[in-house]
Amino acid sequence: MNKSDLISLIRRKHSFLCIGLDTDPAKIPSHLLDAEDPIFEFNKVIIDATIDLAVAYKPNLAFYECHGVRGWQSLTKTIQYINNTYEGEVFTIADAKRGDIGNTSKQYAKAVFDPNSSGLDFDAVTVAPYMGEDSVKPFLEFDGKWVILLALTSNKGSDDFQMMTSNETNFRFFEEVLIKSLSWGTESNMMYVVGATKAEKLQEIRQLIPDHFLLVPGVGAQGGSLEEVAQYGLNKDCGLLVNSSRGIIYASSGKDFAKKAREEAVTLQKQMAAVL
Amino acid sequence: MNKSDLISLIRRKHSFLCIGLDTDPAKIPSHLLDAEDPIFEFNKVIIDATIDLAVAYKPNLAFYECHGVRGWQSLTKTIQYINNTYEGEVFTIADAKRGDIGNTSKQYAKAVFDPNSSGLDFDAVTVAPYMGEDSVKPFLEFDGKWVILLALTSNKGSDDFQMMTSNETNFRFFEEVLIKSLSWGTESNMMYVVGATKAEKLQEIRQLIPDHFLLVPGVGAQGGSLEEVAQYGLNKDCGLLVNSSRGIIYASSGKDFAKKAREEAVTLQKQMAAVL
Repeated sequence: MNKSDLISLIRRKHSFLCIGLDTDPAKIPSHLLDAEDPIFEFNKVIIDATIDLAVAYKPNLAFYECHGVRGWQSLTKTIQYINNTYEGEVFTIADAKRGDIGNTSKQYAKAVFDPNSSGLDFDAVTVAPYMGEDSVKPFLEFDGKWVILLALTSNKGSDDFQMMTSNETNFRFFEEVLIKSLSWGTESNMMYVVGATKAEKLQEIRQLIPDHFLLVPGVGAQGGSLEEVAQYGLNKDCGLLVNSSRGIIYASSGKDFAKKAREEAVTLQKQMAAVL
Repeated sequence: MNKSDLISLIRRKHSFLCIGLDTDPAKIPSHLLDAEDPIFEFNKVIIDATIDLAVAYKPNLAFYECHGVRGWQSLTKTIQYINNTYEGEVFTIADAKRGDIGNTSKQYAKAVFDPNSSGLDFDAVTVAPYMGEDSVKPFLEFDGKWVILLALTSNKGSDDFQMMTSNETNFRFFEEVLIKSLSWGTESNMMYVVGATKAEKLQEIRQLIPDHFLLVPGVGAQGGSLEEVAQYGLNKDCGLLVNSSRGIIYASSGKDFAKKAREEAVTLQKQMAAVL
């Protein structure tokens, strides 16, 4: 999905909500556990209940890999379901935080972007910047696909290295990532992860990258505020995808889980419509 | 596998060779492509031909993920084959370069370390440090398992961020990773990736972490020299695992591929025996 289609989607749904499909069998309603593929069944119901409210779905691959081959089957069925049932109606993100030497990153890119190779056909993948330009570029060679590069993450450990200041430039490490990577791609094939728990940093980040989309995790369960994120992060194209995972998908562990998930998504979508 | 068992293995085999199983169907002998699972068949033959020479095998997960569910089946069969056939005779590394917020890293750890969850039971996993302590710790909570943290990688892009100097400490970023992470684990559950293409840096690294094992990629195809790596990197316990992938596994693309792979492994093992 290209940038103008994504912006159209945001305008049409009055939403910049991304729903994180971090599906954990220990947390899903127990009546689903008898299904042949409980994770897929859960995802399917959540997607059907929220498709008019969400502009993006973001499965975190860890929650699938931990089940090995079975988990990859659930992931594949989930993405194929979205692509077959809701083609063009939603953006999909493989939250994978991959990155390796060039030839290896190319294989990771095929894993998430090339359905003929892997069965998966995501619109975007999250990538870790530690290994630099040649670890990121192979993902950008897939036409119409996006890299979402980690800049400032929402966890406590983000202070360990991301906030280090460079002697040479006086920029912090996460700012170096923003600045250096500007020449690797464009605002039409790169976004950045910026955690909502650091909402005040969004203002500084917007000075460095006014036009790029930002994927913002950490609203809700992790403590970030949607109002602050919108205040500092919105740009002329919206420029935000705000993720909520647990707050929506585990709103109820009973048979009403889809209804409750929808209610939580409606609440966020209304707040988003108000600031758009 | 614990540290003393790993050291025993190195002494017994007179080797610190790690063989990278970056198995690509486009590069394996064509007569294997008719097999039900060509990747697994190739790996099995390579492992059988080199088990007395290698102290570790390191599949890079990208080369499996790019085939989706089928690839995870090949990976699972490979690790189960090693663990069932050569239990205690070799160390296994999931070259995955994972890392995410704590709860998510825990799922990644289950993916590679918990056979009841994923079917995989590696000894070690490579982890990217960008997200800091709480992204690494969950991997260290698995008893008898190892984290191999990226420090200085072998690719060109390692210059982009890893060599940045910190204002606060005057250490470079990869040195900050070494120093800060020393308190996260011990020399019995943490190793570091240090690319052989930067062999002269090993001397400086050994001053910071004299006792830890280092996983050294980049010897051979990527241009690193085994002699230099040994000169600067060896410690009292050996302290090195030197990886070779393409140079060994693709030594021949004919029916003699196992014989030729063994010959390449013998050449490296003899050089290693000489410096041990």
